[in-house]
Amino acid sequence: MAIRVTVWSEFRHEKESETVRSVYPDGMHAVIAAGIREHLGDDCVVGTATLDEPEHGLTADVLANTDVLTWWGHMAHGEVSDEVVERVYQRVLEGMGLIVLHSGHFAKIFRKLMGTSCALRWRDDDSEVVWTVKPGHPITLGVPEVFQIPNQEMYGEFFDIPQPDELIFISSFSGGEVFRSGCCWTRGQGRIFYFSPGHETYRVYYQPEVRTIIGNAVRWSAPLTTQRYSTHSCPNAPLGWFRATDG
Amino acid sequence: MAIRVTVWSEFRHEKESETVRSVYPDGMHAVIAAGIREHLGDDCVVGTATLDEPEHGLTADVLANTDVLTWWGHMAHGEVSDEVVERVYQRVLEGMGLIVLHSGHFAKIFRKLMGTSCALRWRDDDSEVVWTVKPGHPITLGVPEVFQIPNQEMYGEFFDIPQPDELIFISSFSGGEVFRSGCCWTRGQGRIFYFSPGHETYRVYYQPEVRTIIGNAVRWSAPLTTQRYSTHSCPNAPLGWFRATDG
Amino acid sequence: MAIRVTVWSEFRHEKESETVRSVYPDGMHAVIAAGIREHLGDDCVVGTATLDEPEHGLTADVLANTDVLTWWGHMAHGEVSDEVVERVYQRVLEGMGLIVLHSGHFAKIFRKLMGTSCALRWRDDDSEVVWTVKPGHPITLGVPEVFQIPNQEMYGEFFDIPQPDELIFISSFSGGEVFRSGCCWTRGQGRIFYFSPGHETYRVYYQPEVRTIIGNAVRWSAPLTTQRYSTHSCPNAPLGWFRATDG
Amino acid sequence: MAIRVTVWSEFRHEKESETVRSVYPDGMHAVIAAGIREHLGDDCVVGTATLDEPEHGLTADVLANTDVLTWWGHMAHGEVSDEVVERVYQRVLEGMGLIVLHSGHFAKIFRKLMGTSCALRWRDDDSEVVWTVKPGHPITLGVPEVFQIPNQEMYGEFFDIPQPDELIFISSFSGGEVFRSGCCWTRGQGRIFYFSPGHETYRVYYQPEVRTIIGNAVRWSAPLTTQRYSTHSCPNAPLGWFRATDG
Repeated sequence: MAIRVTVWSEFRHEKESETVRSVYPDGMHAVIAAGIREHLGDDCVVGTATLDEPEHGLTADVLANTDVLTWWGHMAHGEVSDEVVERVYQRVLEGMGLIVLHSGHFAKIFRKLMGTSCALRWRDDDSEVVWTVKPGHPITLGVPEVFQIPNQEMYGEFFDIPQPDELIFISSFSGGEVFRSGCCWTRGQGRIFYFSPGHETYRVYYQPEVRTIIGNAVRWSAPLTTQRYSTHSCPNAPLGWFRATDG
Repeated sequence: MAIRVTVWSEFRHEKESETVRSVYPDGMHAVIAAGIREHLGDDCVVGTATLDEPEHGLTADVLANTDVLTWWGHMAHGEVSDEVVERVYQRVLEGMGLIVLHSGHFAKIFRKLMGTSCALRWRDDDSEVVWTVKPGHPITLGVPEVFQIPNQEMYGEFFDIPQPDELIFISSFSGGEVFRSGCCWTRGQGRIFYFSPGHETYRVYYQPEVRTIIGNAVRWSAPLTTQRYSTHSCPNAPLGWFRATDG
Repeated sequence: MAIRVTVWSEFRHEKESETVRSVYPDGMHAVIAAGIREHLGDDCVVGTATLDEPEHGLTADVLANTDVLTWWGHMAHGEVSDEVVERVYQRVLEGMGLIVLHSGHFAKIFRKLMGTSCALRWRDDDSEVVWTVKPGHPITLGVPEVFQIPNQEMYGEFFDIPQPDELIFISSFSGGEVFRSGCCWTRGQGRIFYFSPGHETYRVYYQPEVRTIIGNAVRWSAPLTTQRYSTHSCPNAPLGWFRATDG
Repeated sequence: MAIRVTVWSEFRHEKESETVRSVYPDGMHAVIAAGIREHLGDDCVVGTATLDEPEHGLTADVLANTDVLTWWGHMAHGEVSDEVVERVYQRVLEGMGLIVLHSGHFAKIFRKLMGTSCALRWRDDDSEVVWTVKPGHPITLGVPEVFQIPNQEMYGEFFDIPQPDELIFISSFSGGEVFRSGCCWTRGQGRIFYFSPGHETYRVYYQPEVRTIIGNAVRWSAPLTTQRYSTHSCPNAPLGWFRATDG
């Protein structure tokens, strides 16, 4: 069964800046979505949603039919309604995959799931070298042991996140900074991948290695297809409750 | 330098229930505080704070002078003000230790730091067996490899928490349930320990093994004494910013 | 492409004990292999190998054509040649999946990969309750939140293993013992799953939940299909070595 | 009670090379030991041991009286006897701290405890920038968020180690390489810290930040002072074994 992906993007920089529009004329979400389709082919069905749509395009119905949500935001994190954040949050706990990209580190939904400030250092106009540090992991499939991103913003440590369950990539920058650039967590039944490369003024989401990683992350974070039990209720469980099911 | 501990407790069950008052006549906080003093002696200075005090007893000044905060709440989680929760949260990110006890699993501050629902199964009137599964860890100092709590509420899996950075204790109950009963995380610079034993109607906080564990956790979660840099700002870092400090 | 599985078993108890033979007339490996075939169907090709075959059935050729190896041993761990252990070890580091079952906790290959004694407590004639503690993980697909194994040896903590990268199952026993019964690690590029249920005198490997878990673990531990770079050489890397590949 | 530290070093480069001798005239162990004494003062008692002493200076008696062992080796890993390695290994499982330095990544004892090849990339004549990525950890006490080592060999990823229980430092090098340079694990009851800075031809072990880190690691890895139970035996545990102790 095809993985149902929703690519969410703020889609504001593209409207306000000629520079950004020249790189992403149809919005960053269009390019991210194209990369996922290119990588997963018939194994996925990809839709998009953006901030200025009603309910940011993330209605209860859209989310109920989303297996994996990708998230890019930057200049308007504060405009995302708490109601939508709560809705996404519940879906992650129930098993929806979430891929948070670049400046999405400061998105409400990411901070809520992490429980930390998600602060970091940054600098424009740098280049990035991405190293694989967990080569047995499915997100690294087809990814070289090291690759370069010629033009990219610097994101540097300390990155205020909980220790990742699995650390997949570490990046370095020309100033000598390092960054945990590919990190996995589970929250409830949902799998989360943060991937820092990608910026509105650079062609990062056209780069094959970056597309491969995002595509792999979609597969990795897609929920188990079998219907799951609830894990965020708090039931009273009388003595012998599960043994009763034997009889 | 002595560790400055603040023992926070809701202190409501004790006021409303004769049964609870018969077990904890001066409040659970008094017994928890006594256990910490007993265990750490002159290495600690212990104060208490409760829900019905102004600002729940957790003023900016109190928190600024707290190295480790312990938290017990149950029936009135919703009455803890968001402002105080935010204040505690910032102090944890800055390095204050936090020890969350038993029904505190549903406290606002714990859920905010975990990023999950923190739901679990439960049943009254059981007994608990606590197993050490990380015997090299400082929180296990002086704790036997297994010990029993004769009367205790059952808390069972699935416990909806992020995978602990370190899993220290696992408990079992008479119904066959298991529970990750002692768990460590770091958030920002702050160390967090969740410990599930302890209930308002049982004498758990008088039990020596439980007191030893809470005392050890105070030591373990006490922040580094050296003044730390900020880790939750998001600074621009010009090329060479840290190399300039060589000159 | 089908996952190539080799089910390895000591196959000695079955030859020496009528009791064991009555439970596993064609050997435990036959039943484990049947369970994997049942679960994965055409997605796998399953062979078997046993201790008393030449090179224990694990020739260089067999291993080179094995994606996932399952391991059951007990009474004859010491008879497994160090040369074969080294061969299996190198294949794991290169990416071969390894599923270690029950008394295999004391197998040379498991101890070598773990770096610890892998000791535990044990008792015959008990029953086991298995709890899922990471419900978002692929190994839990189709597995109920709790299930029982009516007749099973007790394995209890302390289990002397490195902290699992991911802890999937915790079991309890009638004596109140607990055990980390389903644990994941990565070593080199290889993924390892230890699963404690299963014993030569009990019908554990006929039980549907156990078969589901082993089948899921085969999928989870199967290596990435793309040819990988070496990760266990120690190359000198001249300045700019990877940048040269840009040109 | 003072922490009893044994600083072990191969002490061969110093005998064979004038260059090395000019940097470490009394051997690297002398400088490492001085740094620990400087940092811990009366809280430690520091001895040294070297390869060419009988039993490499690590007799059963020396090890029985060692709380924390530091290890530096490079050109003669193969000359360390398996018997001494086994002895050190057992002591680590029993709770002795182990700090493995730089080229010690290829020491027999480290590979045995890790269960992997511990391979890495390397290059002479570089400089290193060390970043703290777990600022709440005791090993980071008094360590700046970033510091430089002017002359140092490059050690780069992929570093074939098990995922650290706690990742404390990440380094970068002038070629753009990154390295997990400060890593914590527990094996049995013993705590292990690997720290990559340090080389026989550079003055790294005179540098204050490096000394601070090694000193902190001694404190962190020192075993619990209370007598511990065995964790690497494999006892039969009859039903009720631990409940009997109640009576």
